[in-house]
Amino acid sequence: MEATRTLPIYTEERKENCIRRLKAAEGQLRGVQEMIEQQRQCLEVLTQLSAAQNALRQVSRIILRNYLENCATDAIRRSDPKVYDELMDAIFKFSH
Amino acid sequence: MEATRTLPIYTEERKENCIRRLKAAEGQLRGVQEMIEQQRQCLEVLTQLSAAQNALRQVSRIILRNYLENCATDAIRRSDPKVYDELMDAIFKFSH
Amino acid sequence: MEATRTLPIYTEERKENCIRRLKAAEGQLRGVQEMIEQQRQCLEVLTQLSAAQNALRQVSRIILRNYLENCATDAIRRSDPKVYDELMDAIFKFSH
Amino acid sequence: MEATRTLPIYTEERKENCIRRLKAAEGQLRGVQEMIEQQRQCLEVLTQLSAAQNALRQVSRIILRNYLENCATDAIRRSDPKVYDELMDAIFKFSH
Repeated sequence: MEATRTLPIYTEERKENCIRRLKAAEGQLRGVQEMIEQQRQCLEVLTQLSAAQNALRQVSRIILRNYLENCATDAIRRSDPKVYDELMDAIFKFSH
Repeated sequence: MEATRTLPIYTEERKENCIRRLKAAEGQLRGVQEMIEQQRQCLEVLTQLSAAQNALRQVSRIILRNYLENCATDAIRRSDPKVYDELMDAIFKFSH
Repeated sequence: MEATRTLPIYTEERKENCIRRLKAAEGQLRGVQEMIEQQRQCLEVLTQLSAAQNALRQVSRIILRNYLENCATDAIRRSDPKVYDELMDAIFKFSH
Repeated sequence: MEATRTLPIYTEERKENCIRRLKAAEGQLRGVQEMIEQQRQCLEVLTQLSAAQNALRQVSRIILRNYLENCATDAIRRSDPKVYDELMDAIFKFSH
């Protein structure tokens, strides 16, 4: 929404938190591929997939909170009428 | 549930379908990491995360169907009473 | 799927369990209407709506388990090939 | 969050929209009870439950948007630090 922002959107702490979780999810997805190659039981594969999805959900939660605290807050303060459609869109993406 | 199964659980076609989608999701997760490093807008990051989650959901769907057609069907035919708890557990994992 | 079934699909116990929860959800929905009429805070309304949705989710869970134990089991035992599409459809409805 | 608010939280239009959908959901829940009493097939019951859940989801969506446009906007403008926990809580309730 704003090209001229100079402050970083993500703090160092949030950035590292997200990247750590994303790397863990990547590792879990490589694990799922191996499990399928090795013909491991479906329920084990589903459990591992579910763990990766939880990790991504945590990342989405952090990014969504960041969006609320930064972009959405700025837009609400300057009374940008588009912010509510954008917010609903972000929440919809998060909840699917 | 069965250690002595000789037939593969996943057909070649399903295996390849899943692995292709998992590799795509892995690529999307690497993309999300770059986007966060580059301080890209939260909504773009959420969109990319949502795409990766959809890819994983598709994989879960294929594995769940495979589970129903193979493991659950075998267990139901031999009247294994544990199959229903297992099925509900699989469905619960899928739906979260 | 079967018109000639003579046994009841739902046991007395499951039937009563579902109906009790459905009546509770109905009461919660009347409560939500009053809350909106009284201009009560959005978060209170969302909390009440969320309680009603949880009640319905519990009912769906009982019906889904009943479906697995009865209809799906019968269909799998008589090797009805349509059962897997039907199962995936039921699971999809449950998970949304 | 604010007890002294004089403007109504819900416009007449949104109020009527929500109440119409809630009454429809109530009717669907009475329908589900009859279907279970009549021992109707599980898949039909799940379909009807799913319709009621969609109706409630639509109501939650309207209330959530109302929350964002009114309560959350006020709180963000007066820099209430509690608003972000409240927002995440509202979104979490919506997405479950």
